[in-house]
Amino acid sequence: MNKSFIPFNRILMGPGPSNVNPQVLKALSKPALGHLDPQFIELMDEIKSLLKYTFKTENEATFVLSGPGSLGMEACLVNLVEPGDKVIVAIGGYFANRMAQIVEKIGGHVIAVKETWGRAIDPQKFEDAFKQNPDVKVAAFVHAETSTGALQNAKVLSEVAHKYGALVIADTVTSLGAVEVRVDEWNLDASYSCSQKGLSCVAGMSPITFSARAVEHIKKRKTPVQSWFNDLNLLLSYWNGPGKRAYHHTAPSNQFYGLHEALLLLKEEGIENSWRRHKENSNKLVARLKEIGLEPLVPENERIPNLLTIKIPEGIDEAKVRTDLLNKHNLEIGAGLGELAGKVWRIGLMGYNSSEKMILFCINALKDVMR
Amino acid sequence: MNKSFIPFNRILMGPGPSNVNPQVLKALSKPALGHLDPQFIELMDEIKSLLKYTFKTENEATFVLSGPGSLGMEACLVNLVEPGDKVIVAIGGYFANRMAQIVEKIGGHVIAVKETWGRAIDPQKFEDAFKQNPDVKVAAFVHAETSTGALQNAKVLSEVAHKYGALVIADTVTSLGAVEVRVDEWNLDASYSCSQKGLSCVAGMSPITFSARAVEHIKKRKTPVQSWFNDLNLLLSYWNGPGKRAYHHTAPSNQFYGLHEALLLLKEEGIENSWRRHKENSNKLVARLKEIGLEPLVPENERIPNLLTIKIPEGIDEAKVRTDLLNKHNLEIGAGLGELAGKVWRIGLMGYNSSEKMILFCINALKDVMR
Repeated sequence: MNKSFIPFNRILMGPGPSNVNPQVLKALSKPALGHLDPQFIELMDEIKSLLKYTFKTENEATFVLSGPGSLGMEACLVNLVEPGDKVIVAIGGYFANRMAQIVEKIGGHVIAVKETWGRAIDPQKFEDAFKQNPDVKVAAFVHAETSTGALQNAKVLSEVAHKYGALVIADTVTSLGAVEVRVDEWNLDASYSCSQKGLSCVAGMSPITFSARAVEHIKKRKTPVQSWFNDLNLLLSYWNGPGKRAYHHTAPSNQFYGLHEALLLLKEEGIENSWRRHKENSNKLVARLKEIGLEPLVPENERIPNLLTIKIPEGIDEAKVRTDLLNKHNLEIGAGLGELAGKVWRIGLMGYNSSEKMILFCINALKDVMR
Repeated sequence: MNKSFIPFNRILMGPGPSNVNPQVLKALSKPALGHLDPQFIELMDEIKSLLKYTFKTENEATFVLSGPGSLGMEACLVNLVEPGDKVIVAIGGYFANRMAQIVEKIGGHVIAVKETWGRAIDPQKFEDAFKQNPDVKVAAFVHAETSTGALQNAKVLSEVAHKYGALVIADTVTSLGAVEVRVDEWNLDASYSCSQKGLSCVAGMSPITFSARAVEHIKKRKTPVQSWFNDLNLLLSYWNGPGKRAYHHTAPSNQFYGLHEALLLLKEEGIENSWRRHKENSNKLVARLKEIGLEPLVPENERIPNLLTIKIPEGIDEAKVRTDLLNKHNLEIGAGLGELAGKVWRIGLMGYNSSEKMILFCINALKDVMR
C-alpha cells in the first residue's frame, strides 16, 4: 500500500480484455478536456463517424456509452423492452442468460430458445418460437457467445425475427472489429459492443447503435424508459448535435482519446482486412493447438475465430495450467464460465494480439506448462 | 479526420472536470490487466481501502462504479428506492432535480423540499416535510450543489432524516476530497461521487459507499433491483472477496490505475490538509475576484469553497467572456445551468488546480477579456 501501482506486463489471451495497442495507451495520457469543449464535441463527432464505419451502419444513433459492454446490454434492452413485452432470447451461453435476466428485471416476459452450449442457435428452433408467439416485440441474441466460442448466423436470425415483425438486438461484444458485423445489411435494430477486444482499446466503453426504426419505437413507448443514465432520448440529446448538445453526464475524455485512436488504427488497416487477419490467424492457432493434442469445442463452421474454447484433455488440472501460464509466462488465458466451467479453456487471439508472434508464444507456453 | 487527436492543453476551472495530476495521467498508460487477475484484485482491494479513507467510513460496501457520477446517482437511488416508496428530495439546484427525475423513473413518489437556487436547504423546511410524511423511506440531497455553488449542512440534514427513520443518500460529487465529507460521523447511508473533481483524476468513475444498514435494507427489498448493472447484490459479489469474486463486468483496469494513483496522492497530502488547502485558496480567489468587481452568488457560510458561482455584472456578454477565455487563454470556466443559465459563471478551483498559481492565472485572464 501507499505505493504507485505497477502492473505486470501480461500477455492477455483470454476472452478479453486483450492487449491494448501501445499507440492507444499513449493517447490515454493526453490532457483532459471538458465534456462541452468545442474540441471535445469534434472528437465525439469523429468517434461517431468511425463507429459507423466499424459497425457498417449509417444509423444516426451510433455513439459510445461511458461504461462497459454489460452497460450496453442493459441500455439496449431497457430502451426497447417495456414491462409486459414478450421477448425471445436465443440462449446458448452465459451472456445470453444475462440478457434474459435483464429482460426479467425490466418486467418483460422471456421466451427462451435454448441451444446446447458450444453450438450456434438453430434458426429453425428460433423461428418455431415466433410461430408460437406471434406477439413478440423484441428478439435478442449474442452474435459471438464469449462463454462458449459459438458464432451465430446473425443475418439469418435477424431475417427470421423481422419476418415476424420483431425488433432485433444483437450483442457484438466479442465480434466487433474482429469478425464480420454488418448492422445495416443484417438489419440489426440495436447492437452494443465493448472496447477491449477486437478494437484493441482499454476496457470501459460500449460502442452502441440503434436503427431509425428502433429510435422510433423508443419514442412511441407507452412507459418511460426505467433508467435515467441509459435513456436513449437523453443520450441522443447529448450526442446528436450540432448546436444543441444538452449536458447529460461528464464523458470520460481520456477514455475517448483511446477509443478514437483505436478506431483510427482499425480504419487504417481496413475492417475487412482485420476480419481476414483474425480468421487466418485463428486457423493457424487451431492447427498448432491440434499438434499439441488440443481440440476446439465448437465445430469449425460455427466457431468464433478470435475466441476459441478448447476442450481440457483428460487428467489435466486445468486451474494449475492457467496459474502456471500466468506465473511462469505472464500469459492469461480464460477459464470456462457457467456450464463450461472446468471443461474448457478460452483462448482469445484478438485485435493487437492476432499475430503469428502471439500464436507461437501461446503454443510454446502451453507446451511448457503441460509437459 | 484520420489523424490522431491532440487535445489543447486546457486549464479546466469550470465545475469539472478539473485538471488531472500529471502522475495520474502517466498511470493511465500502463499495460492493461484482466479483471480477474490476482494483481488486479489486489488493486481493487487497495482502491477500496483508499476510498474508505477518502469517504471517512468503515463501510464494507465501499468501491468504485465503472461509470461516471451520474451512474452513481442512479445506483444509489435504484438500490434504495422501491416502486411506491415515498422519497424526500431536497431540491435547490439542477442535480437535485435529477435525483427527483430518477426517483420518478423508479416509480417512487417524490416529496420535493424546494429551496432557492444558490442557498443551502433550510433544515426546518426539510424537517417539516418529514412531519407531514412520517412514512418516508429515503431522503436524498446534494451535498455540494454543482449548479448553484451552495453547500448543504449534511450533518444536520442527515440527523433530521434519521430522526424520522429514513435512509439518507448524499451526493458528494463536487465535495469529495475537496470539502469535509464524513460518511460515518454524519451517518450517511449511501453516497456517490466522481473522479474528475476533488480527486484530480480523469472522468468516468464513481466512488460509492453504502452503510451496513443500507445493505441490509437492499437485501430485504420486496421487489428486485430494476437495474442489472447497478444491482448492489451483484456488485458486492464482484468487489467483496476474498476468494469468492464473482465475475460481474469487465472493469476498466487503466481507469482504476489512475484512480489508485489519485487516491494515493490525496492520502499523501492528508485529506484534512486538502480540505484546508481548498478553503484557503477559495478565500484568496474570492478576495481577488472582488477586487475586479466580481461577487459570489452564495452567502459565505453556505458556499462550496471549491466551486464558486459568480454573478455576471450588468452589461457583460457572459458567453463572449467564456469564449474569449477559452480561445485566448485556453481557460475553461463554466456557464450557469438551469435556472442560473446566463446569470452566473461557475469557477472551480479544485484538486490539482487549487493553488495560488491558478488563482493568479484565472484573475489575469478574466481581467484581460473583461477589459
